[in-house]
Amino acid sequence: MLNKNIQTFIACDSEYEDSKIVLFGAGFDGTTSFRPGTRFAPSAIRNESFGIETYSPYQNKDMTDYSYFDSGDLELPFGSTDSAIDDIAARADQILKDGKLPFMIGGEHLVTLGTVRAVSDRYKDLCIVHFDAHADLRDDYLGQKMSHACVLRRCHEIVGDDHIFQFGIRSGDREEFFFADEHTEMHRFSFDGLEETVEKLRGRDVYFTLDLDVLDPSIFPGTGTPEAGGVTFDELRKAVTLVCSRLNIVGCDVNELSPVYDQSGVSTAVACKIIREMLLALS
Amino acid sequence: MLNKNIQTFIACDSEYEDSKIVLFGAGFDGTTSFRPGTRFAPSAIRNESFGIETYSPYQNKDMTDYSYFDSGDLELPFGSTDSAIDDIAARADQILKDGKLPFMIGGEHLVTLGTVRAVSDRYKDLCIVHFDAHADLRDDYLGQKMSHACVLRRCHEIVGDDHIFQFGIRSGDREEFFFADEHTEMHRFSFDGLEETVEKLRGRDVYFTLDLDVLDPSIFPGTGTPEAGGVTFDELRKAVTLVCSRLNIVGCDVNELSPVYDQSGVSTAVACKIIREMLLALS
Amino acid sequence: MLNKNIQTFIACDSEYEDSKIVLFGAGFDGTTSFRPGTRFAPSAIRNESFGIETYSPYQNKDMTDYSYFDSGDLELPFGSTDSAIDDIAARADQILKDGKLPFMIGGEHLVTLGTVRAVSDRYKDLCIVHFDAHADLRDDYLGQKMSHACVLRRCHEIVGDDHIFQFGIRSGDREEFFFADEHTEMHRFSFDGLEETVEKLRGRDVYFTLDLDVLDPSIFPGTGTPEAGGVTFDELRKAVTLVCSRLNIVGCDVNELSPVYDQSGVSTAVACKIIREMLLALS
Amino acid sequence: MLNKNIQTFIACDSEYEDSKIVLFGAGFDGTTSFRPGTRFAPSAIRNESFGIETYSPYQNKDMTDYSYFDSGDLELPFGSTDSAIDDIAARADQILKDGKLPFMIGGEHLVTLGTVRAVSDRYKDLCIVHFDAHADLRDDYLGQKMSHACVLRRCHEIVGDDHIFQFGIRSGDREEFFFADEHTEMHRFSFDGLEETVEKLRGRDVYFTLDLDVLDPSIFPGTGTPEAGGVTFDELRKAVTLVCSRLNIVGCDVNELSPVYDQSGVSTAVACKIIREMLLALS
Amino acid sequence: MLNKNIQTFIACDSEYEDSKIVLFGAGFDGTTSFRPGTRFAPSAIRNESFGIETYSPYQNKDMTDYSYFDSGDLELPFGSTDSAIDDIAARADQILKDGKLPFMIGGEHLVTLGTVRAVSDRYKDLCIVHFDAHADLRDDYLGQKMSHACVLRRCHEIVGDDHIFQFGIRSGDREEFFFADEHTEMHRFSFDGLEETVEKLRGRDVYFTLDLDVLDPSIFPGTGTPEAGGVTFDELRKAVTLVCSRLNIVGCDVNELSPVYDQSGVSTAVACKIIREMLLALS
Amino acid sequence: MLNKNIQTFIACDSEYEDSKIVLFGAGFDGTTSFRPGTRFAPSAIRNESFGIETYSPYQNKDMTDYSYFDSGDLELPFGSTDSAIDDIAARADQILKDGKLPFMIGGEHLVTLGTVRAVSDRYKDLCIVHFDAHADLRDDYLGQKMSHACVLRRCHEIVGDDHIFQFGIRSGDREEFFFADEHTEMHRFSFDGLEETVEKLRGRDVYFTLDLDVLDPSIFPGTGTPEAGGVTFDELRKAVTLVCSRLNIVGCDVNELSPVYDQSGVSTAVACKIIREMLLALS
Repeated sequence: MLNKNIQTFIACDSEYEDSKIVLFGAGFDGTTSFRPGTRFAPSAIRNESFGIETYSPYQNKDMTDYSYFDSGDLELPFGSTDSAIDDIAARADQILKDGKLPFMIGGEHLVTLGTVRAVSDRYKDLCIVHFDAHADLRDDYLGQKMSHACVLRRCHEIVGDDHIFQFGIRSGDREEFFFADEHTEMHRFSFDGLEETVEKLRGRDVYFTLDLDVLDPSIFPGTGTPEAGGVTFDELRKAVTLVCSRLNIVGCDVNELSPVYDQSGVSTAVACKIIREMLLALS
Repeated sequence: MLNKNIQTFIACDSEYEDSKIVLFGAGFDGTTSFRPGTRFAPSAIRNESFGIETYSPYQNKDMTDYSYFDSGDLELPFGSTDSAIDDIAARADQILKDGKLPFMIGGEHLVTLGTVRAVSDRYKDLCIVHFDAHADLRDDYLGQKMSHACVLRRCHEIVGDDHIFQFGIRSGDREEFFFADEHTEMHRFSFDGLEETVEKLRGRDVYFTLDLDVLDPSIFPGTGTPEAGGVTFDELRKAVTLVCSRLNIVGCDVNELSPVYDQSGVSTAVACKIIREMLLALS
Repeated sequence: MLNKNIQTFIACDSEYEDSKIVLFGAGFDGTTSFRPGTRFAPSAIRNESFGIETYSPYQNKDMTDYSYFDSGDLELPFGSTDSAIDDIAARADQILKDGKLPFMIGGEHLVTLGTVRAVSDRYKDLCIVHFDAHADLRDDYLGQKMSHACVLRRCHEIVGDDHIFQFGIRSGDREEFFFADEHTEMHRFSFDGLEETVEKLRGRDVYFTLDLDVLDPSIFPGTGTPEAGGVTFDELRKAVTLVCSRLNIVGCDVNELSPVYDQSGVSTAVACKIIREMLLALS
Repeated sequence: MLNKNIQTFIACDSEYEDSKIVLFGAGFDGTTSFRPGTRFAPSAIRNESFGIETYSPYQNKDMTDYSYFDSGDLELPFGSTDSAIDDIAARADQILKDGKLPFMIGGEHLVTLGTVRAVSDRYKDLCIVHFDAHADLRDDYLGQKMSHACVLRRCHEIVGDDHIFQFGIRSGDREEFFFADEHTEMHRFSFDGLEETVEKLRGRDVYFTLDLDVLDPSIFPGTGTPEAGGVTFDELRKAVTLVCSRLNIVGCDVNELSPVYDQSGVSTAVACKIIREMLLALS
Repeated sequence: MLNKNIQTFIACDSEYEDSKIVLFGAGFDGTTSFRPGTRFAPSAIRNESFGIETYSPYQNKDMTDYSYFDSGDLELPFGSTDSAIDDIAARADQILKDGKLPFMIGGEHLVTLGTVRAVSDRYKDLCIVHFDAHADLRDDYLGQKMSHACVLRRCHEIVGDDHIFQFGIRSGDREEFFFADEHTEMHRFSFDGLEETVEKLRGRDVYFTLDLDVLDPSIFPGTGTPEAGGVTFDELRKAVTLVCSRLNIVGCDVNELSPVYDQSGVSTAVACKIIREMLLALS
Repeated sequence: MLNKNIQTFIACDSEYEDSKIVLFGAGFDGTTSFRPGTRFAPSAIRNESFGIETYSPYQNKDMTDYSYFDSGDLELPFGSTDSAIDDIAARADQILKDGKLPFMIGGEHLVTLGTVRAVSDRYKDLCIVHFDAHADLRDDYLGQKMSHACVLRRCHEIVGDDHIFQFGIRSGDREEFFFADEHTEMHRFSFDGLEETVEKLRGRDVYFTLDLDVLDPSIFPGTGTPEAGGVTFDELRKAVTLVCSRLNIVGCDVNELSPVYDQSGVSTAVACKIIREMLLALS
């Protein structure tokens, strides 16, 4: 008898019970102000993941030695931001309840608010490590509080001062940088200081949110708001490996791939490779 | 002294006082469920309009003989559908208040709800002529009542039974076609019956809403949900000329161009040419 | 507990036992001589199928009223044509053995040879209805007998004279047209004569193979060898409905979509809509 | 010993002495006012010509039964319109001097001025048959007399009243249509009247200039100024066959393909097929 | 009352009287020998500038604290190089006459000749700082003296020996490098030596011309003649900041963006960000 | 008399007798498992080579001072891998027989097997220098021994242990890296160690095979399997110059450009520039 067509991220087809890490897609881009399209990222990432290997020569580890589960995409209502975030939080909560690590693939960056809500409910002193080109610390954007441009500000309302650690930031309005001076630990332009931050956060519960536009748009053009002057692939690869292997990660996400803006497919291939390195480092 | 850079649809640079027709852009696509991008339509249409002539050999009329005003684009908040529709209604109302005809360029089809609200406030027995591939008569879409897929249903709540006349419809769920049987006059697949409808509506106040995906995607690929089997350019050109020249149009819109999906630029050029024919027929 | 991500053509997620029609993908393009890329068609078609409705206003039928099963894609070895065709025949045979109808999504046209082999093993007097821009009747192509350009010639070796009925053919070398004069029933350029052919084939076992490049490239640019002068979408839609609803179809395929050559996505949307109409007409 | 790489339009590799028809490319687009890129057409057409067959089922003729010569592209100086036109005239003159028919592939439409100059030097009562979306009858364009938008006006200065026969025209400024009323025989929008014109021109020397944008942009998006509402491929195919087979053509050109605006390659394939039909009809 | 649609580079909408810096677009590409398209750069840059912030974290300055004026694009005649350059010189002269700094957005590099003519009329001992991949020092190109490939050679005829300082040059014919050895100060491949040059030029009047293809095509693919081996974004950002903040700039330009060759939009975003950094450094 | 159109790589139009280096194209991609399209590379490289200069400022050498011959492309049968490789070996053998150096432009990497067979027949102790992102050391791929993923493994069967020197490798399955530990000299991720290897190989006969995907996809997106984390253009330029100028190269190839995946054309321009540097360094 034939089987239904199952489509997962490469090597993420273990059984749910056996898997410590559970992927899900949250293809929401309803508040994107400039160029939409991150809604297509989870599907594109699954499709293209079969172009990479399961083995990493960087870490000398193979995904086939571990168990991962891909639970597919949430069907999210466009035009209703609040209920989309609620649905994301519910999915993350279910995974956490089963003692597993939620690994979300966005979508625009606002989706992080859903998982952070769920994770912070269970981990009281949660810290957030944030890689991004943009500060995302606006209080509102064109009057909207629920916006991709405000997501770390909303997270700050949950986790409070001195719990957010930002790296690679190179864009924002002046007020966001002022806010960061007071309330977060922001490292501009690069990963300088990441080693020290990782040392400091050892043993604490950490949520890791990766906005892929922290990469230079030369290697990652497929995103809504490309910001030149970003980090290289190798810098990011090393940084995510450091964070995921040395810290106690209790939830994470990768977001802001917008495949339609990169006809070459390189951006999607980069996202797949970074996700592989993260999955291996978390294992 | 030099002037600031003014950018309008071609030949729409008359003074406001002199103009009977006022264009504005409503680049909102916040509820688009499949492929977003209509937000870029008003700007693309202005840029590309300089590739067409002001003279129409079809109507033997020249835009330079009339006065049109292009008031630019509304800045609409993504992620907040209700306030976007409110802003659209306010702009339309201001134009109507000054005794002029609002001509809106979308944006997704939901923007029509804003102008229809404003127009129906002033014209009590308003009829709507609707060209589209899709019925847009869902009561809700994934739980949302404010969705592009529901816009004519929302309009029906305003204008009531027997006031909506639909042409070219070739896609929808079964319930939408049932609803149309009871509450609207729907002509499937083509403009068959348009002459009779125009005859019937003579002398009444009519709002005209044109979803450009009524065109076959061979000539209009740049749209979010292409539906093969549509009308030809010449069929649409004749139909809009008929509607705009013979009926008492009190407001109108052209929507659902998504330029990024047509690298050739043909879809945008088609939109420009249809808008020119409408403007000339309305004059 | 969460489920693994299942991805099927829209509304093809019934159970195997309940389904009379079983889809599978054969993304092989190893002999394509001009522009490759049909290997990506099955995956693209599944992804994009969620942009169309399950209801057809043309046939007034809804896919949700029937049971279809999508068994996913064969993993085919590039560089080894013979074993690819063998794998395809094996999958088709398994479906036939269970009393179901195999519905294959190519891939290049050579994949048809695999299903025709399997089907002709069970149905001895098999006829083939063939829609295509190209005759595909070469004896060999650059010395290769196993080539997309020879597939109907290979099928002719199986089913014999007067069992192949070709429509829409508008390209080939001179010898192919000579061969057709002797051995097949070829209708050039259009579907003229299809009604009569359908009448003639009533009650016989028929395999239906649809090369989508029979369509004019204005509506179907996403193919390896676009040939201007093809049929319209509505002509094809009516023709496939006629064939699938009136004949005793025992196997069928849809092939030659090459999504990468149509950045607008229209070609893939067209393929989805034609497949929906075929599935409904077969039910 | 190995040979240098020779690249010609398909089946145009006969010896010069044996060939009655000589192709050459004039990839000039220096006066293009909207979207440039026709400079790439001759090269693209040669490359893609190997995707079509040498046999035409429409005319039942095969290019391999005739002799054609492809003399390659002129190297034309951008920024110096006059010398570009001079170089074109010189090449055409050389071909005419050898008793052969010059068949030019543009380039923007202004290149026609070069060949018409050369041809009219040898054929005193020359008539011009002109297929185009645009009238090209401006006296000047932004002050320039040497512009693609003025090319038929410049030709009119050479051949005089009642020697230019235009078909398919659907765009221009008002003055161009006035000019046509007085000085040319213009058939708007279609090929209506072509049979009569061909009858009338029998026995006279005719130059045939084909601007491919006479085609509807659905089938020919790859052009600088797409104008919806054009003729179909089959209409054009029949019209060029009529003109080339029944009239005494002494020179001809095909222009305004801009390949970069059609990522699918369909426009180039269409150009190749039309050129094949013309070459066969001329033979 | 509604206003006409005004479109400027972000934050360049101050009044003319208040602004020390005046932008204008010169979208001319009439002598481009390889791939045209820079004519679309000024419009694309204005449209996309709203995707960047007005605040620069690099310089800790915000455009909203200064006054800039965008005077729109010149309408330049294609096919007539001389008059295009004259029109550019006239616009620059008008801005200079009013005591303001002309900031031109090209267009191909030849446009620089127009502004340099105007600026050198007022500043007698003018020096030119030139960033580029190409030397642009040919005496003629295919016989043309007015060519993008000759623009610095033409400028040299105006400003003379030892007044041109070139950086990043990595392409040219052999003679251009010989010429540079004798007549200009050329720094190959990088910005090595820029600090010293800036020191040397302190207090002198300097025109700054930036050909964006000095960037590596990985970050700036959208240009006519991509030359691998260029500088990084951060290198260019620092270099333009150095030049614009430390030297007495009396005119400048940014040219050679060709948006159509970068579907991702990254090249345009890069151009916008470099222009922002220049505007802030000049203030 | 006019000449047939000859198309070669820039400055490779010398006579065969005079040339020490002979180019040929092998546009085969029949075993490509992920994204096909390298078949178009030789033609694209010839067309675009006229966008670069013949002079290299890096080596201060000009191609016009040397003689090169471009013998065009092999016509290879798709679907028959063995005969394609045989045809390649035959062409290489003919060039070697005439005492010249074969310089092949692929195509997928498997084409290297053809030239290595021919070269190793004449040079008994042949060493291979291999730049690539992928190890290409699989014993089979989906059961196929003749696959691009196995090409260096097949070469190893010819040249034996310690005769293959690999650089830049950053992808493969675990077994390939194990195999390399035993049988080849593999340098991961970069060109570290290249100087020493070149020193060691002085005086020996060396075949050089360059898979362009050794480059980072930021500068070379146009390839079938992009692998982030590659070398920069300048690193590759220096490395190929070192290898080609200091070693006794008896044959070489450049492969895996897939132009359709890079709409900007940068990847093709990069390939052209690398080929120029190789040709100059070999002279």
